[in-house]
Amino acid sequence: MTTVSTNIDTALASFEEHWSPRFLAQVNDFAVRVVKVEGSFVWHSHPDTDELFIVLDGTLDIHLREEAGGETAVHLERHDVFVVPRGTQHCPESPGGASVMLLEPAGTLNTGDYAGEVPDHITSTTGIQV
Amino acid sequence: MTTVSTNIDTALASFEEHWSPRFLAQVNDFAVRVVKVEGSFVWHSHPDTDELFIVLDGTLDIHLREEAGGETAVHLERHDVFVVPRGTQHCPESPGGASVMLLEPAGTLNTGDYAGEVPDHITSTTGIQV
Repeated sequence: MTTVSTNIDTALASFEEHWSPRFLAQVNDFAVRVVKVEGSFVWHSHPDTDELFIVLDGTLDIHLREEAGGETAVHLERHDVFVVPRGTQHCPESPGGASVMLLEPAGTLNTGDYAGEVPDHITSTTGIQV
Repeated sequence: MTTVSTNIDTALASFEEHWSPRFLAQVNDFAVRVVKVEGSFVWHSHPDTDELFIVLDGTLDIHLREEAGGETAVHLERHDVFVVPRGTQHCPESPGGASVMLLEPAGTLNTGDYAGEVPDHITSTTGIQV
């Protein structure tokens, strides 16, 4: 039996790139990932899954498109927990930078259904091994 | 659309009981819960699910029974992440106390398949609403 644990802070210290999530652990079909963010991501949704955000450090704004049209946003600070429901267009943004833990099924692409060209400051990935 | 977030620290400040997990959020069929622990839990397993522990504060030892017999343990400190595989008998213990985040399917009983009398210092629950 493995008795190997991983550490969030060690993982975060092992890379510098923004919007490039690292895989930490798998529990059943779910993956735990951590990501450093700064600036804006791209608008996207995950048609088949909710996505949970936990802010570890810094602040994160998640812009959300209402089904009826129009936009709203949620402002998250340290240790705030927020779930974006499946199928909801959202765009995370962090002017000042943040470290965030993500929970969603393993194999979920961070850019979801985004069909445009992926900007240089973003890595489109299901999670890079630490 | 809800833009309500929850906060880990606010949740932890809202109760004192040890071994009495609080429900924070649900993502698909998974629940995120936080628990304060001190002393020993009971030996148990979850036959149908892995269980993920993230230490938020303090230290946690998870004792594990090997399939071949014998015991081992993993010592977890702040921000350590560890997964107990499904079906593995384990007993969390924290001599000095800890705050821990738990990830497992909603409806999972914290005492798992434990069939004995639940000691007074433990609440057997699938997660109490904050």
